[in-house]
Amino acid sequence: MILTVKTTRRTQLVDITSEVQQAVASAVSPKEGGWCLLYVPHTTAAVTINESADPAVRADIADALDRLIPWEAGYRHLEGNSAAHIKSTLVGASETVAIEKGRLVLGTWQGIFFCEFDGPRTRKIHVHVYGK
Amino acid sequence: MILTVKTTRRTQLVDITSEVQQAVASAVSPKEGGWCLLYVPHTTAAVTINESADPAVRADIADALDRLIPWEAGYRHLEGNSAAHIKSTLVGASETVAIEKGRLVLGTWQGIFFCEFDGPRTRKIHVHVYGK
Amino acid sequence: MILTVKTTRRTQLVDITSEVQQAVASAVSPKEGGWCLLYVPHTTAAVTINESADPAVRADIADALDRLIPWEAGYRHLEGNSAAHIKSTLVGASETVAIEKGRLVLGTWQGIFFCEFDGPRTRKIHVHVYGK
Repeated sequence: MILTVKTTRRTQLVDITSEVQQAVASAVSPKEGGWCLLYVPHTTAAVTINESADPAVRADIADALDRLIPWEAGYRHLEGNSAAHIKSTLVGASETVAIEKGRLVLGTWQGIFFCEFDGPRTRKIHVHVYGK
Repeated sequence: MILTVKTTRRTQLVDITSEVQQAVASAVSPKEGGWCLLYVPHTTAAVTINESADPAVRADIADALDRLIPWEAGYRHLEGNSAAHIKSTLVGASETVAIEKGRLVLGTWQGIFFCEFDGPRTRKIHVHVYGK
Repeated sequence: MILTVKTTRRTQLVDITSEVQQAVASAVSPKEGGWCLLYVPHTTAAVTINESADPAVRADIADALDRLIPWEAGYRHLEGNSAAHIKSTLVGASETVAIEKGRLVLGTWQGIFFCEFDGPRTRKIHVHVYGK
């Protein structure tokens, strides 16, 4: 399955937990186990798992990445978005989450976030579900 | 299986290689292959694979992460542990390792480390084993 | 399967997409699905997925990592390559990519890169292919 994510800022973490949970529920039975590969097919975006309760956490993560990797720093890539490519490699293009009884096995405070580093854009994330 | 890890410092890499190896050995036969998903259900911790021979390496990794992401930096999240959340996203909540003949396929110098970023605490790490 | 990668610089991203694609094609039939675990058995190297079209992108990523994690910074590890170990943990030892119809499911601009952080060396990367 492929989910669509619309982003509204250059750097932005978007909570997609419920969309992924729904995609998983539609692919496996409520008794089934397995695992789920979340895969971002873009080179200036990523996926991460972190706290979903307080939106300040995702804002702090976005700000910290922007501080670590400044948008302008004498990069060679002429498109001007090297900072976004670098953040993509630091955070990573994929995450794997176990499935038990038809649901993702996440920790109490964990959510799944699409990470935009060169927005705003309309993006995709692949949800590959494998039964046990 | 769920392993318990007790940490003693705020930032600490704990070598859990032998515990994970035992969990894998109890789940698959000595002839079996497959793979192992290591998954941290916390949002201020992570898992990584790095050198286990010299404990100075894990100390250098912990120090470098603390330098990159200072504990205090005007974060918005009121719990005061945003630095730990950010490190969790940089290092990542999961690792996948192949299993051959009932054992993890690690490189000669590789070990598996639970990464504490907001300790000391008692933590969990999930070991999901899938046969081929 | 195990691929060999020869690196020529201390920090270098080497595009191995076509070698991995060939390894996958030799392991599964053109109709088969599944997934591929790319695993680096070294502790001073990593694997990432990023843009393969413009070589300036991989050079910018290498430079940014060298800036973030300086080679000399009072590290304790006496071998003198702690910076390489730290970069290995930041980028990560593995990537997982889905396989559909016998081919890796990569985004349009994505390639697979072996990341050398303590070269030049002759390195290995494991390609574990699992059918669905």
